[in-house]
Amino acid sequence: MKISLAQLNYHIGNFEKITEKIIHTLNIAKAQGTDLVVFAELCICGYPARDFLEFQEFIDECGQAAQQVAQACAGIACIIGIPTPNHTPEGKDLHNSAYFIADGQVQAVVNKALLPNYDVFDEYRYFEPEIEFQCIDYKGIRIALTICEDLWNTIENPLYVTRPMDKLIEQQPDVMINIAASPFTYNHDEERIAILSENAKRYQLPLFYVNHVGAQTEIIFDGGSMVFGADGELVDELPYFTEAVTCYEFNKGETIKPLQPVTLQAQRQSDIEQIHNGLILGIQDYFRKSGFSKAILGLSGGIDSAVVCALAAAALGPENVMAVLLPSHYSTGHSVKDAEDLVNNLGCKSELIAIKSITEAFETALHPQFEGLPFNIAEENIQSRSRAVLLMAMCNKFGYILLNTSNKSEVAVGYGTLYGDMCGGISVIGDVYKTQVFELARYINREREIIPQNTIIKPPSAELRPDQKDTDSLPEYEVLDPMLKQYLEHRKSSKEIIAQGYDETTVRRVIKLVNNAEHKRYQTPPILRVSPKAFGMGRRMPIVGRYLS
Amino acid sequence: MKISLAQLNYHIGNFEKITEKIIHTLNIAKAQGTDLVVFAELCICGYPARDFLEFQEFIDECGQAAQQVAQACAGIACIIGIPTPNHTPEGKDLHNSAYFIADGQVQAVVNKALLPNYDVFDEYRYFEPEIEFQCIDYKGIRIALTICEDLWNTIENPLYVTRPMDKLIEQQPDVMINIAASPFTYNHDEERIAILSENAKRYQLPLFYVNHVGAQTEIIFDGGSMVFGADGELVDELPYFTEAVTCYEFNKGETIKPLQPVTLQAQRQSDIEQIHNGLILGIQDYFRKSGFSKAILGLSGGIDSAVVCALAAAALGPENVMAVLLPSHYSTGHSVKDAEDLVNNLGCKSELIAIKSITEAFETALHPQFEGLPFNIAEENIQSRSRAVLLMAMCNKFGYILLNTSNKSEVAVGYGTLYGDMCGGISVIGDVYKTQVFELARYINREREIIPQNTIIKPPSAELRPDQKDTDSLPEYEVLDPMLKQYLEHRKSSKEIIAQGYDETTVRRVIKLVNNAEHKRYQTPPILRVSPKAFGMGRRMPIVGRYLS
Repeated sequence: MKISLAQLNYHIGNFEKITEKIIHTLNIAKAQGTDLVVFAELCICGYPARDFLEFQEFIDECGQAAQQVAQACAGIACIIGIPTPNHTPEGKDLHNSAYFIADGQVQAVVNKALLPNYDVFDEYRYFEPEIEFQCIDYKGIRIALTICEDLWNTIENPLYVTRPMDKLIEQQPDVMINIAASPFTYNHDEERIAILSENAKRYQLPLFYVNHVGAQTEIIFDGGSMVFGADGELVDELPYFTEAVTCYEFNKGETIKPLQPVTLQAQRQSDIEQIHNGLILGIQDYFRKSGFSKAILGLSGGIDSAVVCALAAAALGPENVMAVLLPSHYSTGHSVKDAEDLVNNLGCKSELIAIKSITEAFETALHPQFEGLPFNIAEENIQSRSRAVLLMAMCNKFGYILLNTSNKSEVAVGYGTLYGDMCGGISVIGDVYKTQVFELARYINREREIIPQNTIIKPPSAELRPDQKDTDSLPEYEVLDPMLKQYLEHRKSSKEIIAQGYDETTVRRVIKLVNNAEHKRYQTPPILRVSPKAFGMGRRMPIVGRYLS
Repeated sequence: MKISLAQLNYHIGNFEKITEKIIHTLNIAKAQGTDLVVFAELCICGYPARDFLEFQEFIDECGQAAQQVAQACAGIACIIGIPTPNHTPEGKDLHNSAYFIADGQVQAVVNKALLPNYDVFDEYRYFEPEIEFQCIDYKGIRIALTICEDLWNTIENPLYVTRPMDKLIEQQPDVMINIAASPFTYNHDEERIAILSENAKRYQLPLFYVNHVGAQTEIIFDGGSMVFGADGELVDELPYFTEAVTCYEFNKGETIKPLQPVTLQAQRQSDIEQIHNGLILGIQDYFRKSGFSKAILGLSGGIDSAVVCALAAAALGPENVMAVLLPSHYSTGHSVKDAEDLVNNLGCKSELIAIKSITEAFETALHPQFEGLPFNIAEENIQSRSRAVLLMAMCNKFGYILLNTSNKSEVAVGYGTLYGDMCGGISVIGDVYKTQVFELARYINREREIIPQNTIIKPPSAELRPDQKDTDSLPEYEVLDPMLKQYLEHRKSSKEIIAQGYDETTVRRVIKLVNNAEHKRYQTPPILRVSPKAFGMGRRMPIVGRYLS
C-alpha cells in the first residue's frame, strides 16, 4: 500500500481554499498511484479555530467541506481531521475527529480521547473525549488511527488516566497513523521524535505522523511530519517550516520504503536557526492570511528593532518594509547612523520624523498640571507614545501593519511603555530573550554584515533620558534571562531560584517587576510563540491578585 | 445543628488576609454557638487564581493557610474550598477540593467532579475531575457536599456525562451543601435559583449554597448565597454585591429556621440596577485590590464617559475621580458645557487641556509624508491618541488609573481608536450595550439630575470630524444592539439573524465590522463582565482567520 503524508499550511475558516488545497493534493497523489493520503488534525477548518467552533454555521461548513473532499475520493482514500457533532445528549457538543474516507464516503470516524487543555490549548472547552476505540481495516491493512495527544501519554506523570493505544493494540493493528497539530517551540522537535519513537517501540508498530505547518496568528506550526519503523527508528522526517507531500510503500511485515529521496537531517537545526525560520514564517502568515503586505516599524538604532527589521525584510521582501527613524533629543548621534546603515544593508524603505516638536507640544499642554514637578517616567513615556502615534498614523494613512519590536526580557520585567513601544499588530520577538536576540543578530549576519556591528556591540539603551542604559535599572541580560526562564518557564519560586545561586535582592526585585507588569502584558499584541511558555494565551495570570514573590 | 453561611470577598493570593478573614468569621460564629460555617469554593486562595495554580509554592501556601484555619476550628467545624494535590500519578496534578474541618483537623476531602471549561472558566486546565463520591457525617447529620458545577448538570443537553448527586443520594444524606464561585451576569440570579431549587426538589433535600462576592479583575461575583427547603422553596437569599454571614437552625426532618431576619427580596432587582451595583463593586475591587485609590478619565460631554464618571464617583468617592476635558477643534461648544455640568453635579475634580496644539504638531511632523492626501481616519485617530497620551501622562505623574469608557456596542463594531479611546486600566462599560448605557444614565438620575439631560438626549458622536454622528456609519443603537446580541451571545449566523427580520445589508455589514475588530479587542483592557458573553477571556476568537459572515 502506498501512503502519502500531506503536511500543509491551512488558513483557519477559509473552507474554500482549504478544500481546494486538499482536493488538489488528492488528485496529484491519485495520479501517482497513492492508496491513502493522510492530512493533519482538524485540517478541514484549520487549528486552532477557537470559539469559531461554538458557531453551528461553522460546524455545518466543516461537514460540507468534508463532503466535497469525499466526492474527490474515487480510487483513493484519505484521512482528514474535522470537528463533528457529539450524537449523545451528555457531554460537550463536539468531538475532535478524524474521518477515514474511501469510495466517496466516510467509512469510519475516530474521535480524540486525550484533549490537551494546558498552555495555549483549550480543547476541553469544545470537545468531549472519546472512551471507545476501534481500528480501521483498509486493503488488508489494519490501522490504529489516533489524534495527536492520544500518543503523548507516555511520561512518568501522565496527564490523562487512559491510553488509547493500549486499547487499540488489543485489536492487533498493522500500523499506527497519528494526525497532529503540534506547535513549534525551539525544543519541541527532539521531544516529538522521542515520544513518537517510544510509541513505535512500545507497540512494535510502524508509525506515520502528520503535522500542520504554518502560523496561526501567534502559534507557529513547524511541520516535521515523520515516519518510524516498528523498531522506533526514524525512516523519514519531513522538512520544517514549509509544506511537503511525501509517499511511502508500506506492506505488512516489510520495512517502509520511501518513494522519494528522504529528507532526514544530517544534523538538527540549532535553536536559533529554528527560531529564525519560525519567526519568518510567523510574519509571512500573519500578513498573508490577514490580507496585508506592508509592514512598518520604528527603527531606533538598537538591536531589537534591527533584528525585527531584518526578519521582516526576509519575510515580506525589503520593498514591503518601511522603517521609520524617530529620534528625540535624547537619541545619540550613532543611533540614527546605525539605523540608516541597516536600512541601506537591507534595501528597505525609510522615513525620518523628529519627535521634538511633538513632545514639546505635550509638555506645553501639560505645563499647568506638571509645573514644578521633576522630569520622570511621565515625560519618558510621552516620547515613546508620540512615536507610537506617528507610526499608527502612517498605518492608518498607508495601510501598513505595525510590527512590535519588544523582546521577551523587557516584556517580562515591564521595561516598555504601554501604548508606546508596546504597540503593534504582531510582536515578532516578544518570546525571544534579549540574549537570544543577540544570537539572532549574529545568525542574520552569518554570511555578510546586515545588522551593523555597532548595533550589536553598544550597550542596550531605551534612550528616553540622557545617558540611559538598560543596566541602570536591570541586571545584565546574561543574569536576567536565565532567572526569568526559571520563573516563567519552570514556575520556580524566588526561594528556589535563589537556592540556585542567584543574588537574593536581584531575584526578588526581578520577580516583583515581572508580577507588576501583568496589566501591561494583558494589552500587548499577540506574540509569535517560539518557547514552551510564551506570554499570551498560554500564560493566564490574574491581573489583580497578590503575587507570592 | 446551627449552620452559618459566610459570603465573603477574597483577594486572590492574599493568604494572610484571607486566612485572617476566615478565622475572624469562625471566631464570631463560634461565640454565637454555630456548629458549622460554610465558606465558598477555593476561598483559601480566591477565585479564579488562574496560572498561579501552576506554581508549587502557591499550592503549598494554600495548604499552610488551611492548616491555620484548622487550628482555629476547636469546638466548631467549617467547610473551605482549596486546591489539593492529586495523589494518583495519572491525570492533572490538582483537584478542586473542599475540606471538611473539625476538631482542629481535616476530617474529609471532597473533590469537584464537573469542571466548567467554557466562557471564562478554565478548570480542566488545572484540575482532575473526581469520579468517586462519599457523604460526610457530622453530629448525626449526613451531608452531601458538592462544589458549584457539580449541581449544574440538570439541563436537557447536559455538559457532563455524570451527575454527582445521583451517586451521593444512594448514601441517604440529610442535607446538601454546595460551595460555589458563580460569577454575576445580569440574568444569572434567576437561573441560579431555578437550578438550585430544582436540585432540592429532585433529591428532596434541603440545600445550603454559598457563593463568592467581590470582583476579581473583570469577573464580578455577586453573592446571593441561598438556602432551600426540601420542597425547593427558597428559605433565604443573602444580599447581592456585599459580604454577609447568616445562620440557620437545621435538624433532621424539621424545616430550616433562619436565626436572623431573612433578606428575601420582595422583588428582584432590575437588570440595570444589578449592572449598576455590579459595576460599582467592580471598580471598587479593582482599585482596592491593586492598591490604587484615584481614577482618571477623559470626559467628552457624551453619555459613555458621563456614566463611567458617575459610577467611578459612586465607587471611589468624587474626591478620588479626576475628569479631564480634552476638547479638539471638532468638539462642539455644548460638549464642554455638558462635561462641566456633570463635574459640578458629582463634585469630582477636573482639568481642561485643549489638544489643538498637539494635533497640529503631529500634522506638521507628518506633513512630508501626508502632503496632498485627504483628511481621513489617520487624522481622526491622532486626536483620540493625543488624548490618550495626555491621560496616561497624568497617570504616570500622579498615580491615577485610567478608566476606559468604551461601551459594548462600539467595542463590538470596532468604533474606537486602538491606543486612543480604547486605552485604560479597566473598562467599566465595555460589556454594556449603548442602549443599556442610556438606561444606566436614567437609573443614575433616578433621584436627581446627575448626568445632564443634554448629555442623554443629544445624538451620540465621536466628534473627530465636523458634524460627525454615530449613525453616519452605524445603524441606530436600537437596531444595532439586538443584532449584536444575536451574534455575540447566541452565536447566530448572519443568515439566521436576517431570518429574524433584520435588514440583510445591515446585518452583513455589522457582522463584518465585528469580525474585523478582533485584533483591536485583543489589546483592550480587561472589561468588567456583566453579561453571559463579554469580550475578553470568555470569548476567544482567532485574530487571523477567515470569518464566515
